[in-house]
Amino acid sequence: MEGVDILLHERSKTQFDVDAMKIVWAGSRHAFEVSDRMARLVASDPAFQKDNRTRQGRKELFKNTLRKATYAWKRIVELRLTEEEAGRLRFFVDEPAFTDLHWGMFIPAIKGQGTEEQQQKWLPLAYKMQIIGCYAQTELGHGSNVQGLETTATFDPDKDEFIIHSPTLTSSKWWPGGLGKVATHAIVYARLITNGEEHGVHGFIVQLRSLDDHMPLPGITIGDIGMKFGNGAYNTMDNGVLTFDHFRIPRNQMLMRVLQVTREGKCVQSSVPRQLIYGTMVFVRQTIVADASSALSRAVCIATRYSAVRRQFGSQDGVETQVIDYKTQQNRLFPLLASAYAFRFVGEWLKWLYTDVTQRLQANDFSTLPEAHACTAGLKSVTTTATADAIEECRKLCGGHGYLCASGLPELFAVYVPACTYEGDNVVLLLQVARFLVKTASQLGSGKKPTGTTAYLGRVQDLMQCRCEVQTAEDWLKPSVMLEAFEARSARMCVDRAQNLNKFANPEDGFAELSADLVEVAVAHCQLIVVSNPNQETCDPGDIGNSANHEATTNEPNTYTFETISALSISGVWFIEKLQQDIPGNGVKQQLQSLCYIYALNLLHKHLGDFLSTGCITPKQASLANDQLRSLYSQIRPNAIALVDAFNYTDHYLGSVLGRYDGNVYPKLYEEAWKDPLNDSVVPDGYNEYIRPMLKQQLRNARL
Amino acid sequence: MEGVDILLHERSKTQFDVDAMKIVWAGSRHAFEVSDRMARLVASDPAFQKDNRTRQGRKELFKNTLRKATYAWKRIVELRLTEEEAGRLRFFVDEPAFTDLHWGMFIPAIKGQGTEEQQQKWLPLAYKMQIIGCYAQTELGHGSNVQGLETTATFDPDKDEFIIHSPTLTSSKWWPGGLGKVATHAIVYARLITNGEEHGVHGFIVQLRSLDDHMPLPGITIGDIGMKFGNGAYNTMDNGVLTFDHFRIPRNQMLMRVLQVTREGKCVQSSVPRQLIYGTMVFVRQTIVADASSALSRAVCIATRYSAVRRQFGSQDGVETQVIDYKTQQNRLFPLLASAYAFRFVGEWLKWLYTDVTQRLQANDFSTLPEAHACTAGLKSVTTTATADAIEECRKLCGGHGYLCASGLPELFAVYVPACTYEGDNVVLLLQVARFLVKTASQLGSGKKPTGTTAYLGRVQDLMQCRCEVQTAEDWLKPSVMLEAFEARSARMCVDRAQNLNKFANPEDGFAELSADLVEVAVAHCQLIVVSNPNQETCDPGDIGNSANHEATTNEPNTYTFETISALSISGVWFIEKLQQDIPGNGVKQQLQSLCYIYALNLLHKHLGDFLSTGCITPKQASLANDQLRSLYSQIRPNAIALVDAFNYTDHYLGSVLGRYDGNVYPKLYEEAWKDPLNDSVVPDGYNEYIRPMLKQQLRNARL
Repeated sequence: MEGVDILLHERSKTQFDVDAMKIVWAGSRHAFEVSDRMARLVASDPAFQKDNRTRQGRKELFKNTLRKATYAWKRIVELRLTEEEAGRLRFFVDEPAFTDLHWGMFIPAIKGQGTEEQQQKWLPLAYKMQIIGCYAQTELGHGSNVQGLETTATFDPDKDEFIIHSPTLTSSKWWPGGLGKVATHAIVYARLITNGEEHGVHGFIVQLRSLDDHMPLPGITIGDIGMKFGNGAYNTMDNGVLTFDHFRIPRNQMLMRVLQVTREGKCVQSSVPRQLIYGTMVFVRQTIVADASSALSRAVCIATRYSAVRRQFGSQDGVETQVIDYKTQQNRLFPLLASAYAFRFVGEWLKWLYTDVTQRLQANDFSTLPEAHACTAGLKSVTTTATADAIEECRKLCGGHGYLCASGLPELFAVYVPACTYEGDNVVLLLQVARFLVKTASQLGSGKKPTGTTAYLGRVQDLMQCRCEVQTAEDWLKPSVMLEAFEARSARMCVDRAQNLNKFANPEDGFAELSADLVEVAVAHCQLIVVSNPNQETCDPGDIGNSANHEATTNEPNTYTFETISALSISGVWFIEKLQQDIPGNGVKQQLQSLCYIYALNLLHKHLGDFLSTGCITPKQASLANDQLRSLYSQIRPNAIALVDAFNYTDHYLGSVLGRYDGNVYPKLYEEAWKDPLNDSVVPDGYNEYIRPMLKQQLRNARL
Repeated sequence: MEGVDILLHERSKTQFDVDAMKIVWAGSRHAFEVSDRMARLVASDPAFQKDNRTRQGRKELFKNTLRKATYAWKRIVELRLTEEEAGRLRFFVDEPAFTDLHWGMFIPAIKGQGTEEQQQKWLPLAYKMQIIGCYAQTELGHGSNVQGLETTATFDPDKDEFIIHSPTLTSSKWWPGGLGKVATHAIVYARLITNGEEHGVHGFIVQLRSLDDHMPLPGITIGDIGMKFGNGAYNTMDNGVLTFDHFRIPRNQMLMRVLQVTREGKCVQSSVPRQLIYGTMVFVRQTIVADASSALSRAVCIATRYSAVRRQFGSQDGVETQVIDYKTQQNRLFPLLASAYAFRFVGEWLKWLYTDVTQRLQANDFSTLPEAHACTAGLKSVTTTATADAIEECRKLCGGHGYLCASGLPELFAVYVPACTYEGDNVVLLLQVARFLVKTASQLGSGKKPTGTTAYLGRVQDLMQCRCEVQTAEDWLKPSVMLEAFEARSARMCVDRAQNLNKFANPEDGFAELSADLVEVAVAHCQLIVVSNPNQETCDPGDIGNSANHEATTNEPNTYTFETISALSISGVWFIEKLQQDIPGNGVKQQLQSLCYIYALNLLHKHLGDFLSTGCITPKQASLANDQLRSLYSQIRPNAIALVDAFNYTDHYLGSVLGRYDGNVYPKLYEEAWKDPLNDSVVPDGYNEYIRPMLKQQLRNARL
């Protein structure tokens, strides 16, 4: 079966330039080349093999992760890789490890919250991995509510030290990745107490383990918190528990960019505003959104390829039908394919946003931080929820075999789902958006003009009366029509909920009572952001930052895309510019347009109750939207395999027998089965002790 | 912390008789007592301990399952348990094992498809477990489509034997539980070939392994198919792969109740109709529905208790708010609580239905089999989809800690989700319902009066014109109002889709093109079945079989309940009769009513697009439904803990630190963490090889 390509026929039907699409997906030719090189490097190195991961017990699994993570570091050093290359290499190694937290949270926290002096001291050590850091914020009894943390950092002016202490069981630090077994240092968040007064929660650099023998320092207790969801998956990570018994650190290990504690124990606010503490959060959530597109595209790639390989029922000509040809399959799969592209583009844009915020912070311009914070929070919520659901849907779309670890999907799901909870529970984040909307709506009467993503609320009178113009299915392909429908829906829902809130004497009571309804308004608003284009007039070709989503505040499950892709494919703003002559991109634009409309129309169908209850569209128009959607599925169908090929994933990275590039699924599934430890012997361990006695027993006293 | 009861205050708020509710949940006082006794028996026996399951490697895990399953059998024999008691004991052991297939599929298949003679030969051996059977239907390349199976059984008249053969790789039997390492026998489904002619797929009793040394017999290759989703979970089961190389069995091992092959190789149809083959399917799907209520109630119990224990934000009086008091939490959790009760009742009803079908089969009455088959198929689809989603939602409702195996929810999800795929893919099953509806609708003009669950379509003229009478939120609590809304919606959607189908020259093309829309009609119809009560006039108190759902054909995610509970709580038909004087049931009826309306109104909100697009209700009425829903949440809130206590689950069965009866979550989570193998040593294995060299290395050549 060597050299087989079951999907060759599928690939021959492609109507666009796949190589051009690969570059669109990667973000640039440079990014494509780096990714491609690193992916191949990892895939071709047996040290990075991962197909036995789901069969390993915890200890063996973890030791292997230590091996791979340190080997990856060795290669990064040996090959003198750039930071970008190193990041991609770690990405393709595809195994959660202490290094994720070291590079992704420990270092950014020091960069964002440490003084110049602190950065000069700690960053070189961290960059060379002479220390390994983690990020110790959440506690056993405290997750989302940072202000509820119990760990204390009490300043002792006698010794010029902070005493870090865990006053209760529930104050145990709990969850930090890399903490359990590896990290030598941590950023520990604790309530600052000086002179008997509390000054809120702050970060402290704390050494946890001896650099000589790796033992926890006296006064520190650390362990791993135990098994997590799934085989392999996040169990490669040593999420840890940590308690302090009056552990002392020098005063200069408090991160003091925002607030300084003087030698005398006085708190002095620096010129840097408090919001700076959100810098790390923006960075982290931005990476979470990027991860969403990776995870989703991976699941979609597996499900799409296997849907073309797998045949069930309908044997008109003696051969069963490919399941990808069933409309029920398309109706579940293609919107996820569209979402994968959507999240990819929004992730790219957020990278720019973070860069922009960082540059402004360096220039002491904090004006955009609240917006960036809200925006990343919202996008984090919507992309992770949608991705988690989509991975499981992709698993189901693979039928029974999706349940095998060999499909790659169980591990992908298990490793992915915590993203819905960590760094802000997704529902809590949507409530933040809702609060912002309610505030904006409440100020409408006062003459204050809403701006940015809420600017449309300034036209609320018009939007309460407008009528959707769709008369044919094709009318749904007009961007202005789609935009108005989404604007009217959100505005009308906003007004409705604001009126309901006004019935309460106490606004906070009303907000609490109506919170489930308010989450829905947040969702509607976020979907609007996706389809709207408030800043289009200022668009600067080549500058993604000025595209429509610049002022996005948040978003909702399955939503971000229409505008992102619109900006690309309809108004052709930045990626056409980016691609230019290098890659002709034959047919690329048409495919992205189709995906874009599939995305938006599917959204409209899923939230039809909103559109109809607000009178924004008619039932007839909804039916036409469905007709258009089916037609788009037919347009995408012959290109489906090529659209997932464009992700350029190696079989190593995909880690799925069902998603193999060559489609040679069944022989490989069969081969894979025999690797299970249970197949080490024909007769299983336990036969003589348990099975044989049962079979041989004469059960004379049984009543059965 | 011994004797602590963190949830005492919650329990003191209960407004109904929990003991009475426990009996309602169990189905009868007798059922309660049996379950309660078996649950305690298992929980108190250290041999059945399972809290280390998610930490075990495959071999250790599997050997332990062999130990537990055979020990359970030993206890069943020693204690002379009845079949009912034995079933409950296995249920509370709560570990998928070969015995599930032996009792749940192998024996029922012989009972259903074997001749009298075959039953007399094989059943005693199976009942005494002197042979262990499994059920080998699906193949590597063939799942849902039984008619596509490739394994052949060719009659050899010379030797009076069948030759069982696997002609291709894709014909390998794949997935059967118990096959991989344990079963000595299997019911093998294969294409019957005699005299060179094919006669469809039939079942054969095939011995797989030697009863002396457990080795596969010559010509048979067997193995385990490898790791599946999750830690512990279904990996306790030896799902297997099986291929035959011209393996011979005597002619009398074909299950011949329906079709007999004579000594000469002639096929003779017996007087028993072919449909008999569906008997096993009805039984199996009935047990799947019962399992859905168990799995869902377990997840809901964990999430509800932990939502009362956990506190986040909103510290008005210095203590954070219980998360169960947030409306967003209630809006996600309480409909699932309602669903748990719903599925429990529908499962009970299906048990009756199966008994009824079995009795009829024994009297050679096959008239109700098609309906029973469709009904169980539909209910299988809707309850399993809803349950799988609900378990994951419950996990998310527990915040970060839900991701720990110690929460019990990851394993519950992983072990549960295959139910959406096995015994009929859930979408394929809904398409079967859709086809039935389309057929019924197409006959409306011909004067043929629709009956049973489609009877309402006979009043289609009225239903196209009726108007919902709801004017206040309370109006939604009238059963007739709810019923009409659901009838009108389904009828109108049916008419609409039938009209769309008529536009196609070829009906099959139309069905294929519109299949995604048709699934939605199936859903609407099934939801109607739930809220309707076609047979109420024939209701015989005390006989659940005559209750509203008698003619139910199928159902949809999150739907079954309204009528089930209505029949119980509103019209008070059968469980009030059942409970009678034995259990006063103070307040029980009110709680079930609240749950029933929560269930129905949540459904209406989720599918609002359907109701509005068909003009069955107005936006204003939808808004009133939401108001009523919030009010019901407030009514349920003080009773939430008691409502999950009524499931009467032991902490052993729940298997969740978060769901502990006493709510003493945090100390136990902390304790549990230290049991992880990684905590066997303070410094992890791999430190000297990997971590230390990295920390000590001078990375002079690094570019970073």
